Amino acid sequence: MLEALKHAVLEANLALPKHKLVTFTWGNVSGIDRQQGLVVIKPSGVPYDDMQVEHLVIVDLDGNQIEGTLRPSSDTPTHLVLYKAFAEIGGIVHTHSHWCTSWAQAGRGIPALGTTHADYFYGEIPCTRKMRAEEIQTAYEKNTGHVIVETFREKNPLHIPGVLVMNHGPFAWGTDADNAVHNAVVMEEIAKIAYRTFALAPGISAMDQVLLDKHFLRKHGANAYYGQG
Amino acid sequence: MLEALKHAVLEANLALPKHKLVTFTWGNVSGIDRQQGLVVIKPSGVPYDDMQVEHLVIVDLDGNQIEGTLRPSSDTPTHLVLYKAFAEIGGIVHTHSHWCTSWAQAGRGIPALGTTHADYFYGEIPCTRKMRAEEIQTAYEKNTGHVIVETFREKNPLHIPGVLVMNHGPFAWGTDADNAVHNAVVMEEIAKIAYRTFALAPGISAMDQVLLDKHFLRKHGANAYYGQG
Amino acid sequence: MLEALKHAVLEANLALPKHKLVTFTWGNVSGIDRQQGLVVIKPSGVPYDDMQVEHLVIVDLDGNQIEGTLRPSSDTPTHLVLYKAFAEIGGIVHTHSHWCTSWAQAGRGIPALGTTHADYFYGEIPCTRKMRAEEIQTAYEKNTGHVIVETFREKNPLHIPGVLVMNHGPFAWGTDADNAVHNAVVMEEIAKIAYRTFALAPGISAMDQVLLDKHFLRKHGANAYYGQG
Amino acid sequence: MLEALKHAVLEANLALPKHKLVTFTWGNVSGIDRQQGLVVIKPSGVPYDDMQVEHLVIVDLDGNQIEGTLRPSSDTPTHLVLYKAFAEIGGIVHTHSHWCTSWAQAGRGIPALGTTHADYFYGEIPCTRKMRAEEIQTAYEKNTGHVIVETFREKNPLHIPGVLVMNHGPFAWGTDADNAVHNAVVMEEIAKIAYRTFALAPGISAMDQVLLDKHFLRKHGANAYYGQG
Repeated sequence: MLEALKHAVLEANLALPKHKLVTFTWGNVSGIDRQQGLVVIKPSGVPYDDMQVEHLVIVDLDGNQIEGTLRPSSDTPTHLVLYKAFAEIGGIVHTHSHWCTSWAQAGRGIPALGTTHADYFYGEIPCTRKMRAEEIQTAYEKNTGHVIVETFREKNPLHIPGVLVMNHGPFAWGTDADNAVHNAVVMEEIAKIAYRTFALAPGISAMDQVLLDKHFLRKHGANAYYGQG
Repeated sequence: MLEALKHAVLEANLALPKHKLVTFTWGNVSGIDRQQGLVVIKPSGVPYDDMQVEHLVIVDLDGNQIEGTLRPSSDTPTHLVLYKAFAEIGGIVHTHSHWCTSWAQAGRGIPALGTTHADYFYGEIPCTRKMRAEEIQTAYEKNTGHVIVETFREKNPLHIPGVLVMNHGPFAWGTDADNAVHNAVVMEEIAKIAYRTFALAPGISAMDQVLLDKHFLRKHGANAYYGQG
Repeated sequence: MLEALKHAVLEANLALPKHKLVTFTWGNVSGIDRQQGLVVIKPSGVPYDDMQVEHLVIVDLDGNQIEGTLRPSSDTPTHLVLYKAFAEIGGIVHTHSHWCTSWAQAGRGIPALGTTHADYFYGEIPCTRKMRAEEIQTAYEKNTGHVIVETFREKNPLHIPGVLVMNHGPFAWGTDADNAVHNAVVMEEIAKIAYRTFALAPGISAMDQVLLDKHFLRKHGANAYYGQG
Repeated sequence: MLEALKHAVLEANLALPKHKLVTFTWGNVSGIDRQQGLVVIKPSGVPYDDMQVEHLVIVDLDGNQIEGTLRPSSDTPTHLVLYKAFAEIGGIVHTHSHWCTSWAQAGRGIPALGTTHADYFYGEIPCTRKMRAEEIQTAYEKNTGHVIVETFREKNPLHIPGVLVMNHGPFAWGTDADNAVHNAVVMEEIAKIAYRTFALAPGISAMDQVLLDKHFLRKHGANAYYGQG
């Protein structure tokens, strides 16, 4: 069942340590089959070195486990909320990658400071608001999804394919699992250079809108003409 | 004698360079057999590349060498004080890992700033007080243990499985040698992201207690439900 | 056609990931045959792992594609402007290497702070001015070249073999493609140590001219006597 | 001639890239045979990957080339001044390792901030004074040696086995070539953690003398009892 998707999700999970986005098992990737409304996600607690396609878990959008003997990642409810709210996305990644997590702990969004950012993110990568006590105490993982969705009320999730969850870490997404990991790698790189940019120019503000438009739209707009590199 | 424990302690020592926690031979791991009251510890001065199970040293809790031809690590008296004071722990690690050592040299504890911290440490990772001249001049390594124990008078060592020794570096511990190394890796990662968080948000204070409770207790509390990742 | 140059340009492109100057495909190297007025450049969007000599593209200095079935790098117009303006150079590199990009995003040139810098760059590595809206909206990649050339109106491009493009990232060049990559590696190293120098000594200004002269001229002047290392 | 020393010096040079202390060929190690008054040193400009024992050069203490067809490292006059002034040392290393070079560019010595430092350096690692124009213009490499010797007028070079040359980078030394590289690695590690300590505690001053004494003397004093790790 969903063999191709399972292999793609496995590959995407294995790409996390390869790109140095995870310590131990601190990360998870999922992918969705929109027609069947089924999500393939990493199991909880299996080391990346040992992970096989048969460890992956299939759940429906209500969280019912359809296939797999292991428990799905504890962050599954967050993924499901995002899949339901963001119809355009096909894959989601969550990590505690260190540069993004530093921004998330600082409670700061990452403004667009240069073309590396503008090639992938059409404006600031936002940081969610602080969650309220009752959101944390009950259905915490689901509410983590809700606070992300709230942050994107006025945004196109494929124009800003990632977010910083305050005091926590990054989520990224994309058209599929592989693209979500690609965006997670980019976001970590952006977080690193933005950190250093602020150290060199403490009061700096975002780049000009015209340059942001140029870079984002030449790659992603209706008249895109730009390949990579 | 204690073959399984010796192999576990060897593996744990070899994990230190693998996780990039040590330069040269600057680190040591021990493990204890609580029933027999015997501690297996790394010998002094053997390079990690050459270390074999027969190099390990067995000492009793009074520091008498029971097995092994090499000298035990010079930090053995510190380990023994901790094993005697913290009945719950089964393994100890000491390194000069660079992020933790930077905090130790700064004389600052690491406040809980996010969920990466909260998943493993139930509150601030403390820094010990400055040692007094007489504590340094006589029985220094033993007194290093005492000043750690003093710092934990009001703390559960398995809820805060590590400490920064002022002007020195980190000690971490856990249920066994492998778990102690796991906590040492986590602590180094936390020290890194906390450093950067303070650079991005200089006046920041600790995360909300409710979020700290949620993350620590869903993994470690009586009602734990959270796997890893 | 231009087999030797194509192999040299391929090697130079493959050196970028080896020196950790690129993430994904974010970089490109070209080389020129001055006699024939032809430029060999990396194709757009081919991963470094898969890149073969037959993927390379040949264009003339007006941008006409002479050989190759793939599209040349989208940054080709920038390269061509530089080759036309800087008659001495034989190879060009563009990357988003993270230390240089941090300076470029900060809009700051890198002053000569020490002998590592002085061995290769005879004075500050400049940062271009902000591009105007009309320069961005029309012929953007060509105008990126023009703003670099404007920055070098009073400079010898082989004495300062690189530049930071504001809000964007570094370009470096050299006598050939291999030398251009060499200079790009040096520039990234310089950007890193300059960043840290400013953190340690915030108000610092450039090194003395006499030391700058000594180091640059003993390697590059008419009376050069200095080998490397 | 001097086969054992040549092999030791070769190994020590090859250890530099292994410990990530050099970019390209920016570093050199030498060793001395005190009885014969001969120094074995790295040749100029040979990549580490290609270096063989027959590339090494032998010079006497006046700089006369005794063996070898390649030119000795351009920094040879600095090495010779140090060997003549510091009778206790048997090996010297010069690199542009990035953490030490950042301190050297900032013109700041590294105070003893913790036990990692105290285990190897008995007090601040000094930074030389700025060199005068005439020292730079004539016999520059020799004068680099003299300014180091001047800095150590009141110091024991084996108690402080390294120095930062202002606006330049580190020199380290030791009882032989291998020990000099060991100290260069330690000094780079110390430079890194001291940088971060100052970021966390900007006004911090040196550690207590009693702790510095304890750590240095338990390893290096007449009553040394401390092994490594």
